[in-house]
Amino acid sequence: MIGIFDSGVGGMTVARAVEQFCPGFPLVYLGDLARTPYGSKSPAMITEYSHRNTEFLLKQGAKLIVIACNSAASTASTFLRSHYSQSIIDVIFPAVAKAAALSQSGRIGVIGTRATINSGLYEQRLQSIRPECKVYSQACPLLVPLVEEGWLERRETKMIVKKYLHPLRDQQIDTLILGCTHYPLLKKTIAPRIGRKVHIIDSSVEVALHLKKILEEDEILRTTLYSPETPNRFFVSDIPSPVHALAGKIFGRTVLLEKADV
Amino acid sequence: MIGIFDSGVGGMTVARAVEQFCPGFPLVYLGDLARTPYGSKSPAMITEYSHRNTEFLLKQGAKLIVIACNSAASTASTFLRSHYSQSIIDVIFPAVAKAAALSQSGRIGVIGTRATINSGLYEQRLQSIRPECKVYSQACPLLVPLVEEGWLERRETKMIVKKYLHPLRDQQIDTLILGCTHYPLLKKTIAPRIGRKVHIIDSSVEVALHLKKILEEDEILRTTLYSPETPNRFFVSDIPSPVHALAGKIFGRTVLLEKADV
Repeated sequence: MIGIFDSGVGGMTVARAVEQFCPGFPLVYLGDLARTPYGSKSPAMITEYSHRNTEFLLKQGAKLIVIACNSAASTASTFLRSHYSQSIIDVIFPAVAKAAALSQSGRIGVIGTRATINSGLYEQRLQSIRPECKVYSQACPLLVPLVEEGWLERRETKMIVKKYLHPLRDQQIDTLILGCTHYPLLKKTIAPRIGRKVHIIDSSVEVALHLKKILEEDEILRTTLYSPETPNRFFVSDIPSPVHALAGKIFGRTVLLEKADV
Repeated sequence: MIGIFDSGVGGMTVARAVEQFCPGFPLVYLGDLARTPYGSKSPAMITEYSHRNTEFLLKQGAKLIVIACNSAASTASTFLRSHYSQSIIDVIFPAVAKAAALSQSGRIGVIGTRATINSGLYEQRLQSIRPECKVYSQACPLLVPLVEEGWLERRETKMIVKKYLHPLRDQQIDTLILGCTHYPLLKKTIAPRIGRKVHIIDSSVEVALHLKKILEEDEILRTTLYSPETPNRFFVSDIPSPVHALAGKIFGRTVLLEKADV
């Protein structure tokens, strides 16, 4: 199985994209709702939680791990790669590769949680594959709570998005990476405020496309993971009442959520 | 020692009020920043965390527990009282008593997190001591993130506060309980929007005054807890970078934060 973890429900946008782009490859998802959000926690804490989540997914039979949470990918991916022999794919690299390829001016913006932006990992990776590019980063800590409230197109949300994007707009970026799995749900609010000509990169879609490519190229992995009869499983470490509705919204269908003790 | 716990730093407003009103009575504080916030988690999860926090405080020598977190008080106080023989004081009752005494019209508003409002505990306790009163409750899930960002007097915050308070204003309440320890930091924004004649009750101050009264009346407890030479201790289960600044803002001085494994 493909193991996918996130701090909460945001990573379900990755799971959904994996379902679409990699049919026949079952997945097991873990959303750590008991400790969500990760973005405001310390790197040491996020690493500890990511370690526990990975252990849980491996016990469920995962043979490959996707870190769907940008905050976890930014702070814990080096640790997880050094600790496990399994393939570990994180949500950051595919978005970086896409942005580096798409940007003409080399002026690239990144928005994310405070943990993601403070890690500097997007910047570091962008500059390692395209050294001349200029990266402008902006932490947007209020966007996750706004999305989780479902305030996707409210006036207050539009004002807050505008305020956050203002410095990036001033820098005349031509490409913007949505460095948090919650942000694609705000795409309609973000696009007109950053400028309609700016390419917007959705890290959820990019990581699923990257996984698809790996499965096409790596025969051993493809054979190991292909199992069209195995159903997908969705675990959460806490089941607060709004989670069913949010999951239903993301998948467009009712999803059975199982409780995980992590 | 007086043990005080909260999901994060909000409860430090309670610790600060206890320092002011109960000098000579040392306190040990625990902020569960590793799992914050509680307000969006399930009652079962909040109860489990509250149990662990209480265990930690008792091990540190606490002889009395103050539940400074409204979400924990709303969902876990019954469990904690049935489980422990120590006195357990929660942040809800003193605010309820004050509101019931102050309100003339009997039309009382309560704002809090989703967990607090969904529990219905404020309503239930208000009606048990003043059966004819009408209670109007409003969950305000975005206010905690706004406070934690330090957006106390921004235009966006004012708009969001206005939107949340609108239904309470329509009901012509004469008393409003701030049912979350973060909200006193927004008092200047809340007061003009609910109406200047409305009494605003700060649950942090009320619980400290209640504790002061208990210490005056209960000689055994007073003798047990009085120890003017013992320093106060402040524990947090995670130490993300902004916590020092926020604690400094609440206490008006530098506070040594110790890491707790809970």
